[in-house]
Amino acid sequence: MPLDSNHLIGKEALLLLLHKEDQLPEKLRQLDWKYCKGKVGSMDGQKVVAAVETAAKNQGIIKSSLYRETHALYHAILEAMSGVTRGNNQIGTLLRTVGLQFAIVRGNPYKDKEEGEWIAVALYGTIGAPVKGLEHEAIGLGINHI
Amino acid sequence: MPLDSNHLIGKEALLLLLHKEDQLPEKLRQLDWKYCKGKVGSMDGQKVVAAVETAAKNQGIIKSSLYRETHALYHAILEAMSGVTRGNNQIGTLLRTVGLQFAIVRGNPYKDKEEGEWIAVALYGTIGAPVKGLEHEAIGLGINHI
Amino acid sequence: MPLDSNHLIGKEALLLLLHKEDQLPEKLRQLDWKYCKGKVGSMDGQKVVAAVETAAKNQGIIKSSLYRETHALYHAILEAMSGVTRGNNQIGTLLRTVGLQFAIVRGNPYKDKEEGEWIAVALYGTIGAPVKGLEHEAIGLGINHI
Amino acid sequence: MPLDSNHLIGKEALLLLLHKEDQLPEKLRQLDWKYCKGKVGSMDGQKVVAAVETAAKNQGIIKSSLYRETHALYHAILEAMSGVTRGNNQIGTLLRTVGLQFAIVRGNPYKDKEEGEWIAVALYGTIGAPVKGLEHEAIGLGINHI
Amino acid sequence: MPLDSNHLIGKEALLLLLHKEDQLPEKLRQLDWKYCKGKVGSMDGQKVVAAVETAAKNQGIIKSSLYRETHALYHAILEAMSGVTRGNNQIGTLLRTVGLQFAIVRGNPYKDKEEGEWIAVALYGTIGAPVKGLEHEAIGLGINHI
Amino acid sequence: MPLDSNHLIGKEALLLLLHKEDQLPEKLRQLDWKYCKGKVGSMDGQKVVAAVETAAKNQGIIKSSLYRETHALYHAILEAMSGVTRGNNQIGTLLRTVGLQFAIVRGNPYKDKEEGEWIAVALYGTIGAPVKGLEHEAIGLGINHI
Repeated sequence: MPLDSNHLIGKEALLLLLHKEDQLPEKLRQLDWKYCKGKVGSMDGQKVVAAVETAAKNQGIIKSSLYRETHALYHAILEAMSGVTRGNNQIGTLLRTVGLQFAIVRGNPYKDKEEGEWIAVALYGTIGAPVKGLEHEAIGLGINHI
Repeated sequence: MPLDSNHLIGKEALLLLLHKEDQLPEKLRQLDWKYCKGKVGSMDGQKVVAAVETAAKNQGIIKSSLYRETHALYHAILEAMSGVTRGNNQIGTLLRTVGLQFAIVRGNPYKDKEEGEWIAVALYGTIGAPVKGLEHEAIGLGINHI
Repeated sequence: MPLDSNHLIGKEALLLLLHKEDQLPEKLRQLDWKYCKGKVGSMDGQKVVAAVETAAKNQGIIKSSLYRETHALYHAILEAMSGVTRGNNQIGTLLRTVGLQFAIVRGNPYKDKEEGEWIAVALYGTIGAPVKGLEHEAIGLGINHI
Repeated sequence: MPLDSNHLIGKEALLLLLHKEDQLPEKLRQLDWKYCKGKVGSMDGQKVVAAVETAAKNQGIIKSSLYRETHALYHAILEAMSGVTRGNNQIGTLLRTVGLQFAIVRGNPYKDKEEGEWIAVALYGTIGAPVKGLEHEAIGLGINHI
Repeated sequence: MPLDSNHLIGKEALLLLLHKEDQLPEKLRQLDWKYCKGKVGSMDGQKVVAAVETAAKNQGIIKSSLYRETHALYHAILEAMSGVTRGNNQIGTLLRTVGLQFAIVRGNPYKDKEEGEWIAVALYGTIGAPVKGLEHEAIGLGINHI
Repeated sequence: MPLDSNHLIGKEALLLLLHKEDQLPEKLRQLDWKYCKGKVGSMDGQKVVAAVETAAKNQGIIKSSLYRETHALYHAILEAMSGVTRGNNQIGTLLRTVGLQFAIVRGNPYKDKEEGEWIAVALYGTIGAPVKGLEHEAIGLGINHI
């Protein structure tokens, strides 16, 4: 059941963002891992959620016809947002804004095939006052079975 | 006042962990940025805080004789923990354990020298049941002025 | 994809507790839904989590060899606890204690078979000061795909 | 001071919802317990609060001229909402919606008459994406002295 | 129903602490308002709760034989603690300690006698690392109907 | 490093509000401590943040051209709001409104000059239903190094 240190789904999602990579490493694509990237800037939490969900559905990362996949993704997004907001998932209501890139990765990070597929949502960018420059970096990662 | 995209303090702290680097890039060391790395595994939140604080003091990242530096570091640690725990900063009380590496970086990530020093605390590792393998990855990042 | 109003997994878990039933209705047992019940009283959050997890594993509700099943159950337990504690998942650290019954149900509550299995954890009992009688009722329900 | 197991105010409120009952059991009506039921669907937390408050006032469960009664009810509603939202009391800002039924019950659930009146607010229904069918059940219960 | 600006229960509780007063103003004692003061220092949240509860019972501010009074006090204490801890009610588990004075006041702060009695719990002191001097001030106030 | 009991920055900020004082004591003005006061009433959390930030900038308490000063102030405001809202920093979304006075004080509350400047934000007023009179008092205090 241990994580496979060559297939760390969270780390791969984070590196897609931090290195501005366009794709996952070759070995993971061969394993048929799915992924996509996107951007969202907003003071409105629901727009962040929507941007990630829409990308995941449009890029075929999840099946939009299955609620269980949307449910898995949704909770991964909220967990990633709690890293960015450091706990409360509030943005504009506290007079702050985010400028984020996101990466979504789907695959099995465990040595045991039985563990099946998991989904990772990584967010990286800035959070701060709604004034250019009054901001610092933030990161978040949510991981869920799917 | 904007962030200098070559001196992103959060990103540098995260890359120290994700790439298992031993040190910051040459250009940042020349700017006299300080940093250190360490590890901590525990079900006890206060041990995570203590491990990061002790490393920061022992490695000279902060002056232990000044409360304002301890205060800046402390809040950065709590923010990083909220990413790892996804919001509540509770570990063992919810029957889970963490195995984390941490990186602490101190320097000025802004184009304007007046912005002075900032501190970033990054945590990366696993969180899960207190049983080997029943775990997934987690990340957290806290950034504060110091 | 809609919920099937005859197979509401959360409602079934709650009725097991509120009516002190010993088993699920016949129609659900014929659908091979799994369930179990138990009790736990503690000031210690991790004991509540452990009691529910242990019952689920011992009664064959989840496979203990698969982390994805433990992960699904764990988050359902935490969600149920947040109902009981009304948000913070803290018990003894705030000088209160709980006396709870729990029910765990596994099955597909949706009309579409593709939605697969879900798990519901219901908690019902009392929360209050660690003195007999200084308490009121509390409830919690967590639902997750598994 | 113990709870009277025949007069469990939280359980009665929950059964009104789960069994789609129109009224409390005869024995409780004879004790002059008050109750009402209603429905609310919204992405907006304040509309949930308002719907429950308005019903309680219109049905004479609380006296709208006394702040202490509004205060007791308000905190019971927030506690019930924290069960439904599993901790953060946020709905639309996280791109989700609720479809809830609510029951409010007022009476004395303790053996000792001196304990006076208490109020229970129970919420039961669904929470999920603002798309029909992408939802699961949720429950919440708040109890307060009044 | 408005608050009576001469009988502000929260303000009176705060002034007892900030001015190191031993008693409430004469006019409030004539109205038979009850109050007491005390101290508690701890890394353990439950000791803070216990210290305030014990003082309230021993000084006759609340009747220990009535759960409704303990319940009203308990929630006022938790609300005051959330001000001191700024949201999470965690102390030692996050490696910090508090040194607090507390004041409890009971009376009717409203113009309308029908509003009955209310209770205010005020906490004032320091919070910080478990090292002398590494601390700053904190305050909290909880108010409840009783 | 200990706090100087004659220069308690949080206490001074609170007394400005509770005593409706117009200015800090003479001894603190001679030490060149800065301060200002203001009012804000809203159901909207971001308006509370904005009112305090605007006053601090307009009155010269912080330099608006430095993000590190805005950052220090912002976190002090959020901490003060968490006292007023008792944890969740939500106002109108939970159908409640605040009527607050605020005081901001900047100075060094420690015996050691090296501790430099700190900022305190105190909020005092009422919170309650958006109906005149359905409200009670609330307080909050945030303190940060600057």
